[in-house]
Amino acid sequence: MEFSLTILGTSAAQPAHGRHPSAQLLRMREHSLLIDCGEGTQMQLGKYRLHSGRIDRIFISHLHGDHCFGLIGLLTSFALSDRDRPLEVYSPPGLREMIEVQLRMTASRLPFVVNFVEVTVGDLEVLVEEEAFEVLAFPLRHRIPTLGYLFRERPAPRRIRPEKIEEYGLDFLQIRAIKSGADLSLPGGSMVPNAELTYPSSPPRSFAYCSDTAFEPRIAEFANGVDLLFHESTFCSDRADRAAETQHATAAQAAQIARLAGAGRLLLGHFSSRYEDATVFLQEAQAIFPRSELTWEGRVVQLPFEKRPF
Amino acid sequence: MEFSLTILGTSAAQPAHGRHPSAQLLRMREHSLLIDCGEGTQMQLGKYRLHSGRIDRIFISHLHGDHCFGLIGLLTSFALSDRDRPLEVYSPPGLREMIEVQLRMTASRLPFVVNFVEVTVGDLEVLVEEEAFEVLAFPLRHRIPTLGYLFRERPAPRRIRPEKIEEYGLDFLQIRAIKSGADLSLPGGSMVPNAELTYPSSPPRSFAYCSDTAFEPRIAEFANGVDLLFHESTFCSDRADRAAETQHATAAQAAQIARLAGAGRLLLGHFSSRYEDATVFLQEAQAIFPRSELTWEGRVVQLPFEKRPF
Repeated sequence: MEFSLTILGTSAAQPAHGRHPSAQLLRMREHSLLIDCGEGTQMQLGKYRLHSGRIDRIFISHLHGDHCFGLIGLLTSFALSDRDRPLEVYSPPGLREMIEVQLRMTASRLPFVVNFVEVTVGDLEVLVEEEAFEVLAFPLRHRIPTLGYLFRERPAPRRIRPEKIEEYGLDFLQIRAIKSGADLSLPGGSMVPNAELTYPSSPPRSFAYCSDTAFEPRIAEFANGVDLLFHESTFCSDRADRAAETQHATAAQAAQIARLAGAGRLLLGHFSSRYEDATVFLQEAQAIFPRSELTWEGRVVQLPFEKRPF
Repeated sequence: MEFSLTILGTSAAQPAHGRHPSAQLLRMREHSLLIDCGEGTQMQLGKYRLHSGRIDRIFISHLHGDHCFGLIGLLTSFALSDRDRPLEVYSPPGLREMIEVQLRMTASRLPFVVNFVEVTVGDLEVLVEEEAFEVLAFPLRHRIPTLGYLFRERPAPRRIRPEKIEEYGLDFLQIRAIKSGADLSLPGGSMVPNAELTYPSSPPRSFAYCSDTAFEPRIAEFANGVDLLFHESTFCSDRADRAAETQHATAAQAAQIARLAGAGRLLLGHFSSRYEDATVFLQEAQAIFPRSELTWEGRVVQLPFEKRPF
């Protein structure tokens, strides 16, 4: 099943060098989740032929403009395309007021329900529980309240070994119980343990999104063991002072968090306009965490299932 | 001297087919004037390598989002580039409040003065008087208060014929007076009329911007005799009902206004997402007003001086 991330914006606050402000589209199974919505996100969605009408949840990290100024345009375009499905928008407090003022001043009306969920967290907390996945929020360290988000598949049921169905003559109810983890009681009173009857399912995949933030070791705890970590790298170490001053991270710090978290892969982004060529971010991060990768707009990052040895 | 218009957005409310919301950059002499500022305008300015720092006046036609949602991002980017020059923003009432709420909610501060001039007009009224040009506003007919803008060079002084300086032995003060239109008094008491001493200067150039609006014959009076007219054409005549209902114009109606106004050239734009290929707008308008032209993003329209017959 699909678990893919499309990068829509890679720029820090001031767009430059053809880069756009922050936005990423995460597809998990049949769900489309938008993460941050900088100015121009609706045009970026169109450019990469992503069907914005499928988005049913939006996660805004914080209320700096490069992460949320595109939301009002996206909402009013949803209205023009006669959307009627409700939408959930998660963010730190304040977004609802900002959007409502703009709707009022521009004489706009949304023909669908927007449920603004304004979130304050001190630790890792569950925001969304779906059958297939859950979304959690955790605090980042920035100049204003800022949320990191963790998107995590739920474990799928174990898969029954087909030859065992024949061997024991299993019926429908028995198969369902075994898939849920039950052992099998045989007529003579002996038990066949579940592990003999099933394969484990593929392990659940996970993605953590951390932008904007200063270097903060707690993030490695929140994102512990994620398959894919996006961690902002606004600057390289040559501007570590500027990073500290503005509460942003360097590429080296992003890599340190990835290493501490034991992440599978690290994605770098939110590049300052001072850097035209992002290669320097990659070099700096890979020296610390080799599985570091750059983001670029239009890039689609797939999270494959791991291959199992049987 | 420069009088050129760069098209940054050609889309109606819902961006589609790679088109962006409304924005145009007018350069008159050393001045850069931004007209409308739809979402993504700052990125469009960057894409076409236009120096946004030179913009000192912004004219917003009305408070529908596709004409103003890019303003907050442009202002905050000005702040990030340490702009200190003041900025004037003309619009119908309400823009200031909308921008101030967003600045407050996003914890942003502008290190330069923005002078919001909120305008209500019933007729053609002067907003800006510069030495080289003036800007006037006039009412359009749309669902909310909407302004048209007329940008008009001031007449340049007449140019003295070089051979007359030698013929009459003119000094500096005499030359200055003649350039301003004075006749020349000769020692014997006779007069040489100014027209014998000078060439007329090139006629002042003018541009009128009309978006968004229903068909409204008064616009032809306000824009009477302009060299260049931008008139929205959201629809073609196949959707004339939809145009009337939403108070937009068809390409045929835009062409009728251009013909009534005796405009030099007509630019068409603000194309609905229902039309992928804009050629249909051009065909419809040219049947009524042959000097109709399409706009496309990145197009630079130059207003040359007319060639004089001497």
